[in-house]
Amino acid sequence: MGEFELIKRFFWRDAAEDAHTGVVLGIGDDCALLQVPDGQQLAVSVDTLVADVHFPASAAADEIAERALRVNLSDLAAMGAQPLWFTLAITLPETNEDWLRQFSHGLFRAAREFGCALVGGDTTRGPLSITLQVMGAVEPVQALRRDGASLGDFVLVTHNLGDGAAALAMIEQRLAVAPEHQAYLHQRFYRPVPRLREAQLLRGLASAALDISDGLVADLGHLCAASDLAAVIDVDQIPLSPALQSLADREQALRWALTGGDDYELCFTVSPEKMSAVAMLIAEGQLEAKVIGELVAGSGVHCEREGDAFQLTETGYQHF
Amino acid sequence: MGEFELIKRFFWRDAAEDAHTGVVLGIGDDCALLQVPDGQQLAVSVDTLVADVHFPASAAADEIAERALRVNLSDLAAMGAQPLWFTLAITLPETNEDWLRQFSHGLFRAAREFGCALVGGDTTRGPLSITLQVMGAVEPVQALRRDGASLGDFVLVTHNLGDGAAALAMIEQRLAVAPEHQAYLHQRFYRPVPRLREAQLLRGLASAALDISDGLVADLGHLCAASDLAAVIDVDQIPLSPALQSLADREQALRWALTGGDDYELCFTVSPEKMSAVAMLIAEGQLEAKVIGELVAGSGVHCEREGDAFQLTETGYQHF
Repeated sequence: MGEFELIKRFFWRDAAEDAHTGVVLGIGDDCALLQVPDGQQLAVSVDTLVADVHFPASAAADEIAERALRVNLSDLAAMGAQPLWFTLAITLPETNEDWLRQFSHGLFRAAREFGCALVGGDTTRGPLSITLQVMGAVEPVQALRRDGASLGDFVLVTHNLGDGAAALAMIEQRLAVAPEHQAYLHQRFYRPVPRLREAQLLRGLASAALDISDGLVADLGHLCAASDLAAVIDVDQIPLSPALQSLADREQALRWALTGGDDYELCFTVSPEKMSAVAMLIAEGQLEAKVIGELVAGSGVHCEREGDAFQLTETGYQHF
Repeated sequence: MGEFELIKRFFWRDAAEDAHTGVVLGIGDDCALLQVPDGQQLAVSVDTLVADVHFPASAAADEIAERALRVNLSDLAAMGAQPLWFTLAITLPETNEDWLRQFSHGLFRAAREFGCALVGGDTTRGPLSITLQVMGAVEPVQALRRDGASLGDFVLVTHNLGDGAAALAMIEQRLAVAPEHQAYLHQRFYRPVPRLREAQLLRGLASAALDISDGLVADLGHLCAASDLAAVIDVDQIPLSPALQSLADREQALRWALTGGDDYELCFTVSPEKMSAVAMLIAEGQLEAKVIGELVAGSGVHCEREGDAFQLTETGYQHF
């Protein structure tokens, strides 16, 4: 099966089935032709997932695909953008039709869930690796950038932290997890939820935002650097899922929450003036988020527990 | 050196040095924010180059980078779009600073030459591979699509064919080339020229177009299929460079021209009504292109020599 036949069979048909916003010309020409909605800016992010670095090569193909797209969409969420389109560059060691069918199934399942159309791609032979580029649209003034935070802003995170790293440890059999938490953690790794809904709620309220892919300390550190401030975090306020709370080694759970990465939750800042509006969203159950600290003068991220410095042994996931 | 430090050091600075059209927010946030020019459509194409599949892993890093961007820009040319931005996803087996410095140098050299700004990317660890996504803008009615050709249209190609495959054979030491042609072929492989200037001339004149990456027969076959027609090619009309004309094995030179791939020339069709305008551009030396055949009823690409069928032993480069 040639490259063209492969694309046609596993990617073209499903892509063509969905009518999507602004797709003038989809897969099959030299370029896709796309129409960005009037008055909006294009938001673009690219992520590569390498087998046995970012996911186990033996994972189910549909889960690899779902994870790849969801992780990438998390970057659009972190910017406050609405997903529109994506491209797929996939490098495969061989043409395994069953694997490709399953991959395609997972990919389009996630694409439909988040209203994102596959508009182009490239297939090559080599060690298994997937590069997705997602494109979305955002109103010029409403983008959630990293550099908008101010002194005295509250620091919040959505949902729970640490699940990503704990799930990976479970999948790699480095961590024993009680049966009742296994399915939850598996989902958290392979089907992370891009916080698109939450980001829409936060437009106009958050002063800065990003998604936590490399760990809270590392990523909040980028936000602090971009905004020229420091953050003080109360580690006891960091939200942990029941699965993480159940772990015997609570220090390990906290380390994962602080430095583990792969959580794809939003970390965002809110000024004291806007905090009551965000608190109302939380109180009404529209937004699941929690205050974990504040921004102060200085640089870096400082973790505290009961007023004392909380010492970290790792500083976040390093791709290199 | 962490991923963040690496990006900052080798990619961020150069990217920030250039002021570019429509870059609202470049490298360093969750997404790039881009403003497509008013009234224009976004053209997007993605290409992956895998070490030892698409280029020798031992090649000079600046040449790998230049080739990657130039090959990708060829897809924008084939659509008649003007380059604006690109993203880079690079997977590296190790952090080799000399290699990265050289790669970055080649990348930005080509980016400046073609007015294309690096706006985002991802760096990961793994087997060497480069995925670029180029983005450009095109007037809605002027895009050069594959499906616009009509019965009786002339088939033309720009410059020379076969150089890409011959150059690869030379680089891989499968072909001995006279010293006076070596530098030319080396350039043709590592510094292919995206035919952006030619494509701008052809907007409003060509009925369909694509770039020749997989070989004339395979790529023209896609154009024929998209336009529901067949093509008849006179192989003796295919333009060959002096380097290819000098080869002892003329049949091999023709096979490379027909099926070798990696040429990144434009193949385009012109209606009889518009042919005189295109012929004038050629005669005046503004456009280097040649008529090699015509479109007829039927399907597929039929090669002829002196009126007889010319038999091919290969049907183009297959990525799989």
